[in-house]
Amino acid sequence: MVEAEEKGALKARLLHGEVVRTSHKEKAEARVGRIHARAKEALLAFRPEALAVEEQFFYRQNELAYKVGWALGAVLVAAFEVGVPVYAYGPMQVKQALAGHGHASKEEVALMVRSALGLKETPGPSHLADALAIALTHAFYARLGAAKPL
Amino acid sequence: MVEAEEKGALKARLLHGEVVRTSHKEKAEARVGRIHARAKEALLAFRPEALAVEEQFFYRQNELAYKVGWALGAVLVAAFEVGVPVYAYGPMQVKQALAGHGHASKEEVALMVRSALGLKETPGPSHLADALAIALTHAFYARLGAAKPL
Repeated sequence: MVEAEEKGALKARLLHGEVVRTSHKEKAEARVGRIHARAKEALLAFRPEALAVEEQFFYRQNELAYKVGWALGAVLVAAFEVGVPVYAYGPMQVKQALAGHGHASKEEVALMVRSALGLKETPGPSHLADALAIALTHAFYARLGAAKPL
Repeated sequence: MVEAEEKGALKARLLHGEVVRTSHKEKAEARVGRIHARAKEALLAFRPEALAVEEQFFYRQNELAYKVGWALGAVLVAAFEVGVPVYAYGPMQVKQALAGHGHASKEEVALMVRSALGLKETPGPSHLADALAIALTHAFYARLGAAKPL
């Protein structure tokens, strides 16, 4: 969860960061239900203007696509219930927004995330850093009037 | 929603059948949110012992797998919230359970659905008939102590 400045250089404050871990020992509905409950809780606590997710590209892994879809479905239910619009950005758009060019390395993106949030270290784990990059990417495009709904 | 006899030939009563239709003009979160809300409402109204879904197989269609996954995620959230365990069966298991052999035609399966539910016509649309076949398949395996959790 980040709060972005409306103008000027891309600056934002990190309000909340969380990774929901599930175990393959849990039943599917419990894993998905827990993702929904945590997402809804954070949305209710912070009432953000937008929720941004990573646009997914799957090549051969249908089974993975299907199961990642379950988790996104749970997050979409939470967004709908709390009334938060959902946006999605792909890796190229993240690189473009944060590093200024589509061929930026993971390190360049991480550096820009740290810099925009005024942090000394890249927030971990890497899933959280990725989520923050997506959030900042949305802030970047929203300020340009070019937000990209899912 | 069906209520199955616990013993004897597979017989069940149709309590409720519903197809949730969404439009591609709706936002993704509204479509998924509505699927969740309708599923939860039906689960709360009938408090079933189990929710059975179709096991999905995707070959080349990753994009489809991902989006069908969103809808299943919404249903899993509802099942988790209401405390209903989820089971899944593939097409072969449906044919085996309802027609007694894995090479049954769609017509044979439809005939068995009508017969088990004591109906004169196959309930439409076809998505509803498919859902009822899955529900009856779960009843069949559950009676054998062979229910298949998702």
